[in-house]
Amino acid sequence: MQSDIQISNQHLCLPITNIATDLGINASELTLFGNTKAKVSLSILNRLAKKTHAKLVIVTAVTPTPYGEGKTVTTIGLTQAMKAIGINSCACIRQPSMGPVFGTKGGAAGGGYAQVVPMEELNLHLTGDIHAVSSAHNLAAAAIDARLYHEERLGIEAFAEQSGLAPLNIDPQNILWKRVVDHNERSLRQIEVGFGEMNGPIHTSGFDITAASELMAILALSKNMKDLRSRIGRIVLALNKDGQPITAEQLGVAGAMAVIMHDAIEPTLMQTLSGAPCFIHAGPFANIAHGNSSIIADDIALRLADVVITEGGFGSDMGFEKFCNIKVNNSGVTPDASVVVVTLKALKANSGIGSEKCVNEPDLKRLKAGFKNLEWHIDNVSRYGIPVVVAINRYPEDTDDELTWLQQKITQTKAFGSSISEAFAKGAAGATHLAEIVNLATQQQSHFKPLYSNDDSIESKLMTLTELMYGAANMTLSDKAQQQLSWLKQHGYEHLPICVSKTPMSLSHDPKLKGIPRGYDFPISEFKLNAGAGFITALAGKVMTMPGLGLRPGYLDVDIDEQDKIIGLA
Amino acid sequence: MQSDIQISNQHLCLPITNIATDLGINASELTLFGNTKAKVSLSILNRLAKKTHAKLVIVTAVTPTPYGEGKTVTTIGLTQAMKAIGINSCACIRQPSMGPVFGTKGGAAGGGYAQVVPMEELNLHLTGDIHAVSSAHNLAAAAIDARLYHEERLGIEAFAEQSGLAPLNIDPQNILWKRVVDHNERSLRQIEVGFGEMNGPIHTSGFDITAASELMAILALSKNMKDLRSRIGRIVLALNKDGQPITAEQLGVAGAMAVIMHDAIEPTLMQTLSGAPCFIHAGPFANIAHGNSSIIADDIALRLADVVITEGGFGSDMGFEKFCNIKVNNSGVTPDASVVVVTLKALKANSGIGSEKCVNEPDLKRLKAGFKNLEWHIDNVSRYGIPVVVAINRYPEDTDDELTWLQQKITQTKAFGSSISEAFAKGAAGATHLAEIVNLATQQQSHFKPLYSNDDSIESKLMTLTELMYGAANMTLSDKAQQQLSWLKQHGYEHLPICVSKTPMSLSHDPKLKGIPRGYDFPISEFKLNAGAGFITALAGKVMTMPGLGLRPGYLDVDIDEQDKIIGLA
Repeated sequence: MQSDIQISNQHLCLPITNIATDLGINASELTLFGNTKAKVSLSILNRLAKKTHAKLVIVTAVTPTPYGEGKTVTTIGLTQAMKAIGINSCACIRQPSMGPVFGTKGGAAGGGYAQVVPMEELNLHLTGDIHAVSSAHNLAAAAIDARLYHEERLGIEAFAEQSGLAPLNIDPQNILWKRVVDHNERSLRQIEVGFGEMNGPIHTSGFDITAASELMAILALSKNMKDLRSRIGRIVLALNKDGQPITAEQLGVAGAMAVIMHDAIEPTLMQTLSGAPCFIHAGPFANIAHGNSSIIADDIALRLADVVITEGGFGSDMGFEKFCNIKVNNSGVTPDASVVVVTLKALKANSGIGSEKCVNEPDLKRLKAGFKNLEWHIDNVSRYGIPVVVAINRYPEDTDDELTWLQQKITQTKAFGSSISEAFAKGAAGATHLAEIVNLATQQQSHFKPLYSNDDSIESKLMTLTELMYGAANMTLSDKAQQQLSWLKQHGYEHLPICVSKTPMSLSHDPKLKGIPRGYDFPISEFKLNAGAGFITALAGKVMTMPGLGLRPGYLDVDIDEQDKIIGLA
Repeated sequence: MQSDIQISNQHLCLPITNIATDLGINASELTLFGNTKAKVSLSILNRLAKKTHAKLVIVTAVTPTPYGEGKTVTTIGLTQAMKAIGINSCACIRQPSMGPVFGTKGGAAGGGYAQVVPMEELNLHLTGDIHAVSSAHNLAAAAIDARLYHEERLGIEAFAEQSGLAPLNIDPQNILWKRVVDHNERSLRQIEVGFGEMNGPIHTSGFDITAASELMAILALSKNMKDLRSRIGRIVLALNKDGQPITAEQLGVAGAMAVIMHDAIEPTLMQTLSGAPCFIHAGPFANIAHGNSSIIADDIALRLADVVITEGGFGSDMGFEKFCNIKVNNSGVTPDASVVVVTLKALKANSGIGSEKCVNEPDLKRLKAGFKNLEWHIDNVSRYGIPVVVAINRYPEDTDDELTWLQQKITQTKAFGSSISEAFAKGAAGATHLAEIVNLATQQQSHFKPLYSNDDSIESKLMTLTELMYGAANMTLSDKAQQQLSWLKQHGYEHLPICVSKTPMSLSHDPKLKGIPRGYDFPISEFKLNAGAGFITALAGKVMTMPGLGLRPGYLDVDIDEQDKIIGLA
């Protein structure tokens, strides 16, 4: 089989204007970026204000493994297959970060014959939204350090007199806003800034990957430009020397940040290999943000298509849970069905037994043990009152025996149904059965309910998540977390939903705990306020907000060929 | 008079496809970015391979002052006026950096009724080229630090065995490649990176503004994608522990860097307020790079228009000199005429006498003293064998007496002619006389010659520049510069042209030396190899490669209004 970029390069894309017209977007609502990408104006929401929302399907997966479960492949393949059986479908996915593209993971356009094309457009700059997030984020970082510099240089009284601005009295030990760059940059994780004459004061800072910026979560959760602007104003950048929050509004930088993101708020329309429409918008890093595409993209798609398919990062305990408890909390738009993606390999790797090297070999004992992980995810999703379809993403080496066993076992769960998907190898044709079942599932009466209410205490929200989603028996807060909790309550942030930041590689906080860990303590080490995004992050263990480059990074294979074409993207 | 952004907002732009068609660009050669911006494919150079080049005019100025001489206003106004008198004209200007946009200077789209529109599109993301430069630059920084980390962690033998790559043996004290960000970021000028567990080794780094990246100079000097790719490969990122250069090619990151810049190599077409075409491409920071727009943009424009007008950063000793000795050296395309922009204010401020606060007041004594500065710049340009036209950019408060005196004095110089330009207040109509004179000048027999040959020694090239352009009597090299000079000679870099990095605010290296400093020593503190861009930077004194934000930064005024429109950009 050909590589992803070969398949993408050999495909003749339709003009994006055709895709837009078919979907019901007017020419005046499009800003073209060449022939294969277009941003869609938010004015379309006014025109379609009275249109009712279509069915919304959210794709999630079992606990992720290093082999890749194929969640985006299934999302795109399902969208293609829906179109093939005559349903007006549309996908909404996140914009990939360039860090992993040049690191190890490769792109995020799907793969094989279930791709968004041209894949190199999606995986590189797209229409500049991630660059806008980096730029707006780093303007705030520059602004806070510059303000600190001038206030310290002049003293706050002379500063006030000379600048005409109210001093902020920033505590250099409590600058909460780091910098961002869209690369895997280990050496910038923790840095000291402000060396050299007249550049100080020297203080600690660091870089996160751009997808981990609170601004990325704000982009994903905003309903319109006014909402984006006011959320940016609420971001807490630092504390002053009295421990009080300093917001982007107080610093006077919120307007400029919103201006830099003025175009980023419009989602980008592209197409799949089968010509189905796909919106790409926002890409908040799943284990430190809420891991879902934007409310705006969903909103537009749901007024245009009959079925909209989106995905949440990692397993049902991660992006899916945050979809239901954070994104729905902001949008009011509830899902109608969910797809849980699974592979035979993933179940074996999640079994907690056997060697990681032998996941390709038939092994019913491991499969049985790993099945519990799938069952947990099916139960997780069912708790929200929506039907679950299991998509078994088939690899070429999978045996019919094991697949048959798995499908049989799924009939004994709460799942609405299951189907083997061969979208990677066969495109739409490999997922038509899946499409039919998912379509049926969306027509069931759905009884969606979130897991907790905003009025619950922070501890109660957390306990609900740790017990029901992660299977923990108890939750413990570090001393630091206890202090931060008091501060959050004092400052009126208790009503916010909780975004747990934990490893995605286990249901628990510990990537080594495979299978279905039960009866353990779930430790919260720290809270982080995202007042602009509108959630409180609870950190469980050490969570990386900046990946690193490995021994043989992906960039080694990427180049430009004799015809000036891009090669080597995976 | 209205503000720049008000004028821009109230103007109804023509579809950029109309501008392109009028200029002779085929639809298939355009990549649209909305209705007002389009990238132009380099394939146009094949189609127009046999077209002869049009006339090329380079706009420069007297020694810059804080008041602004209006070089871009004159460039755009002249292009508009040429069109108005029936000449097929086109401008080529640099892409503005967002640092100054949100810092103090404001945008770089021209101003008043001589603007490129929409100005906010030009001044913010444009078509993403600066973001691409930042991203490609920072990938190389991440790559070199990651390689250092892995080689130090494993030891070079184990590294070679496990990675299959030849160890580079990087000297952490000699990493020459810093990071970049497109903001005014004082606190990142000098930083220490690599703190925290497994992120090391700790070493010094820092950020320049993106416009100061060698990649920006490479973008400006490349002739095509192959040239760009091979220049990137030649960049020296670090020295190894034996003092030998390590290139981007050796690190294996050059291909990926070129891929990130794959679209940036195409210039962007926009329009002026009068519908004249304007290419925007590259923006190398004038006092540390060569300060001119790209060879590719010039090349395309010169095959399409009859007169192409471009500008070099700062005075004739800076961007103009580098145009003639670096850009022409790479392109082989020589200018046919030059425009030196001057204002009454600038001459008074350059007089070396009187108070800076009184530059608006009539003062013939100061004007006479300052006139020498203009004469020096006229002589500078004349040395290259091309005709000089002086454009007097009129301010409302300028008196007729002083303007008449100035025009009379100019007749006694080597200038081909002069004209008062009122392009800011009147657009094309304010510069038609200037356009006529410049057009006449381009029809003179031109005898362009550069100031030195590649075969001259580095010392000789430098001596030529310091004597003829800056009026110095001697040149001195610091010990460090002496050592670096030996290294450059040993490693075969002596044939490269020299890019002197000095203050633009004086003809000399010292911003306090106003007027026409003579008989002084010009001190070179350091050399910096830009092997990819293909020049050696010679640093004279302390030159800022990263601006800072002032007491009341420009961002304070920028916001989004009730109609979601951008306001407050200057």
